Amino acid sequence: MSPGPLKLKVQLLCGDTPAIGPGKADLLEAIDAQGSISAAGRALGMSYRRAWLLVDEMNRCWIERLVETRSGGGEASGARLTEAGCKVLAAYRQLQAHLGEQARGEPLATLTGMMRSEPET
Amino acid sequence: MSPGPLKLKVQLLCGDTPAIGPGKADLLEAIDAQGSISAAGRALGMSYRRAWLLVDEMNRCWIERLVETRSGGGEASGARLTEAGCKVLAAYRQLQAHLGEQARGEPLATLTGMMRSEPET
Repeated sequence: MSPGPLKLKVQLLCGDTPAIGPGKADLLEAIDAQGSISAAGRALGMSYRRAWLLVDEMNRCWIERLVETRSGGGEASGARLTEAGCKVLAAYRQLQAHLGEQARGEPLATLTGMMRSEPET
Repeated sequence: MSPGPLKLKVQLLCGDTPAIGPGKADLLEAIDAQGSISAAGRALGMSYRRAWLLVDEMNRCWIERLVETRSGGGEASGARLTEAGCKVLAAYRQLQAHLGEQARGEPLATLTGMMRSEPET
């Protein structure tokens, strides 16, 4: 979504708290893939504490929880995205992709044509 | 450009250095309004050192300098945007405005409809 020099950061704020943004979207994807918050955190090089904190923030920013956890050992433990979690993740990725697409052409071309490829030393 | 809960951060990177972004665009505008780097920094609550550093970074990221300084006392001292500086600032503001406009409608409406107005405590 950020080809070439353009970097777009898309966030949705709930009050002052980011309800979803690049890091939280990546975490939702990792939870979906890994089936647990700790494994998702590890896959992203994030502490369990940090991953848990981000999940807690997300769950408090949305009307429905995005992640549900199951306690207990064995097969039943872990975490997964709720239907709302899947929907938020998909809509956020769509928004990112749409904006990345819409950034093409002018005025971005004017800007990139005036930039150096590396800063002058 | 960021109505409601949406927060968009648009940056252009030159290597790893942000060549332009929200803070640098504000600084260019303040230099244009104030006629000096120190007054622009003060207007933005930024130290002279930080303002000078950002100007130096910008000047090294673009083929032409964005800000020119004049030394010497009295009327002749100060700083102003070059033609390239005015052009970069205008194109960046256009890009921000265009993306803010393009974010309206779906999928943003789906997301905002699912969010709380404040995080649950």
